[in-house]
Amino acid sequence: MTAEPESDEQACRQVLQILALIGDKWSILVVGHLRDRTLRFGELHRAVTGISQRMLTLTLRQLERDGLLTRTAHPTVPPRVDYALTPLGTTLLDSVVALAEWANIHRPTIIDNRCRYDATHPPRTQA
Amino acid sequence: MTAEPESDEQACRQVLQILALIGDKWSILVVGHLRDRTLRFGELHRAVTGISQRMLTLTLRQLERDGLLTRTAHPTVPPRVDYALTPLGTTLLDSVVALAEWANIHRPTIIDNRCRYDATHPPRTQA
Repeated sequence: MTAEPESDEQACRQVLQILALIGDKWSILVVGHLRDRTLRFGELHRAVTGISQRMLTLTLRQLERDGLLTRTAHPTVPPRVDYALTPLGTTLLDSVVALAEWANIHRPTIIDNRCRYDATHPPRTQA
Repeated sequence: MTAEPESDEQACRQVLQILALIGDKWSILVVGHLRDRTLRFGELHRAVTGISQRMLTLTLRQLERDGLLTRTAHPTVPPRVDYALTPLGTTLLDSVVALAEWANIHRPTIIDNRCRYDATHPPRTQA
């Protein structure tokens, strides 16, 4: 914890930065897949459909930097790198799971809404 | 609701797309600000610190397209445009609020973790 006084503006910027990170879909998916157990890099790469190796590396590094997961490199040949949620990362899980479940439950409705919107709205340039 | 059969792959892509949208920090902030009442475009622009007019327009249009909010244009001079959450948008609120509260509560810890990480980790290129 920081003992320095801070402005509301500064606090707000920091919440925004954290939301930008944890709200990222790849972060949500990585944290979700680590719910039950430690996974290796390759296992995560297969589990998170559609993520590139480079994006997975960046996502994992950001989550490690924020203290949401641990990275353990084993000195084997070939090298093995394990990722696991920290207690802080585990506290994030409940919110993440709730968001993913919301997306899954309301998916058909949202897809329908998009079709209806596109059929009735011409492109516009004003707010 | 769609009656067509769909593959797991297709369902997974759609959940990803929805997460990418609702996980966006601007969407989270806009939905959060509409929690209590209808807001005009200008009120939202002032409330959501740091968002550009263009990004707010795009965010509102996506949320409207997904059926999460309604846009009501009043034929006044100057034109007035109101935005309000739909019932579907309101169901999203609980998850969104939980995520924002998590970010706010753990902000100091995450800032400290970042400082500690940056002090001990040289840049690396491998996963």
